[in-house]
Amino acid sequence: MRLRRKPEANDFLLEHSDIVINDYHPGSWHERFGNDHPIHIEIGMGKGDFIIELAKQHPENNYIGIEKYDSVLYVAVKKYLDDDNRPSNLRFLRIDAKDLKDVFEAHEINRVYLNFSDPWPKKRHYKRRLTYKDYLEVYQYILVDQGYIEFKTDNRILFEFSLASMANYPMIFEDVKLDLHKDEEAMLSNIMTEYERKFSVNGPIYKLIAHFK
Amino acid sequence: MRLRRKPEANDFLLEHSDIVINDYHPGSWHERFGNDHPIHIEIGMGKGDFIIELAKQHPENNYIGIEKYDSVLYVAVKKYLDDDNRPSNLRFLRIDAKDLKDVFEAHEINRVYLNFSDPWPKKRHYKRRLTYKDYLEVYQYILVDQGYIEFKTDNRILFEFSLASMANYPMIFEDVKLDLHKDEEAMLSNIMTEYERKFSVNGPIYKLIAHFK
Repeated sequence: MRLRRKPEANDFLLEHSDIVINDYHPGSWHERFGNDHPIHIEIGMGKGDFIIELAKQHPENNYIGIEKYDSVLYVAVKKYLDDDNRPSNLRFLRIDAKDLKDVFEAHEINRVYLNFSDPWPKKRHYKRRLTYKDYLEVYQYILVDQGYIEFKTDNRILFEFSLASMANYPMIFEDVKLDLHKDEEAMLSNIMTEYERKFSVNGPIYKLIAHFK
Repeated sequence: MRLRRKPEANDFLLEHSDIVINDYHPGSWHERFGNDHPIHIEIGMGKGDFIIELAKQHPENNYIGIEKYDSVLYVAVKKYLDDDNRPSNLRFLRIDAKDLKDVFEAHEINRVYLNFSDPWPKKRHYKRRLTYKDYLEVYQYILVDQGYIEFKTDNRILFEFSLASMANYPMIFEDVKLDLHKDEEAMLSNIMTEYERKFSVNGPIYKLIAHFK
């Protein structure tokens, strides 16, 4: 995603600390949501279309949108606040995925969404990809047993890498789609990200649903 | 592959029992080849272009092309016999993949090729797909430890199924290609089947190289 510096973003995010959580600590999330509903997170939420819509459709779950870039998170939070039907089961976090263990305790999370993550296309950068085994180890820690990871991308190199990384971790593959938008059944429940709506004309969208053993 | 009945096929294959092996028994293959080179097999060889070319390029290995349909095997064997440069390290077998354990002993085979296997696209037929776990169990039995399976297909449904089946078996993924013909490095050593040459214009060719743990 192209980033434009927004000097006002940091102040804005600090002003909305009721929904952009700064005073997080592991194990506190059910208490914060005021219920014991499952907690689903999106890592690298971008501009937020996906998780805002998902939270609306599923009031029976809690959602946390995670984004490390101020200027991107700012767009998502503004969009959320401008929405007259904004869902009350959604919070935001400004952290890096590698710090997830500082935020969540073991098994606190029920599902992880990864949508169109940065592909880091250069071979020497493969350890930065969000499906590299060091990240999988973090997801395994925060996820409940059999908790799903749902991963979508249009980047062939990233998906090839991720299939091998996740198979070899080892994870169990529940479902693989190599051209999601051609699968009528899967599309019934598909929520498109901004990026997906724009770029799916260029080639297939790949999807993998998997869980740890 | 469209099958046309060829009444002369059976007689022809029986006449060439020096290369189309009928008197097989497990554990005899190195003796039959007269050397202890690795043995690679292609299951569902079709018209044979792939394995004939592979055998020519790799005199350091032994090859066995396996095909259950007389009329298809007939075409491959005729092609082989008509080839002035036919490789001496290639034999043929007329058997069904489910009977591989009657033909090979444990660990007798070093690599298995599956190229454009019948996709059995109807969901209720998934157990017939050559990457279904019952077949994987047979390949594991006949393969050496860490022996590779190399699998190519243009069928999306079959490849989606196979990725999950092989990941969950569990197998280790060495390499995944979601559009083989766009990968310059991989194409340097790619040998195309008749089918691949004809149909790769219609969409991507998928490839998976994997081995058992």
